[in-house]
Amino acid sequence: MRDANSAFYAALEARDLDAMSEVWEHSDRIVVTHPGWPMLRGWARVAGSWDAIFHNTGYIQFVLTDEQVTIVGDSAWVTLDENILQAGSSDDLSGSKATSVNVFVRSHDSGAADDNWKMVVHHASPVSAEG
Amino acid sequence: MRDANSAFYAALEARDLDAMSEVWEHSDRIVVTHPGWPMLRGWARVAGSWDAIFHNTGYIQFVLTDEQVTIVGDSAWVTLDENILQAGSSDDLSGSKATSVNVFVRSHDSGAADDNWKMVVHHASPVSAEG
Repeated sequence: MRDANSAFYAALEARDLDAMSEVWEHSDRIVVTHPGWPMLRGWARVAGSWDAIFHNTGYIQFVLTDEQVTIVGDSAWVTLDENILQAGSSDDLSGSKATSVNVFVRSHDSGAADDNWKMVVHHASPVSAEG
Repeated sequence: MRDANSAFYAALEARDLDAMSEVWEHSDRIVVTHPGWPMLRGWARVAGSWDAIFHNTGYIQFVLTDEQVTIVGDSAWVTLDENILQAGSSDDLSGSKATSVNVFVRSHDSGAADDNWKMVVHHASPVSAEG
């Protein structure tokens, strides 16, 4: 379960759309909310948002803190804080903090491994400085 | 399932801490993130945050849009947009928009009804005006 969450942040740091595609369930029920953004539903819009972010991000690194995993049957969610260091198209690095809930569902597709968790919700929101 | 989500917003609009207490699972694994706030874990801190919000809110009304419910076994999550009209201690009303994911777990405590869903995550985040 933690592996799926780690794979998500690895794909994000690598700005690798193929790796990000592997992380997510490809369905209409999935949802992404980037910090300050409106909610986007369905794989096409989710993928489009990652593509846009990856193109506008020169560098991004996450330090994850206060991580907690809850598993209930074939659902699981990870809640954590994201301490983000990033650069856009220029080389200037800036830091920010977000807090996130990531929901996963275990897939039982034939041929899938027992521990085949797919992301269905990523909701990250900005935390004010004094947080 | 939708009843549990409706009860959450009814408790919030009524600024009723007892009703809010009924909505939530009373455990350490629960999490609330109010728009712009850091994540708060556990019933004591969750309850404290509602108490503070209720004391500083003279009026609050929600119009919920784009609501979608996903149920996987004994877990469920509702994703939706919150169109909020509220007043603080003065009478001035202000509008805002947030997007939220609310996660519920079905309780099988003895004596509980079949459909006894308890909130375990509420994560609401501010959406920029042009959303």
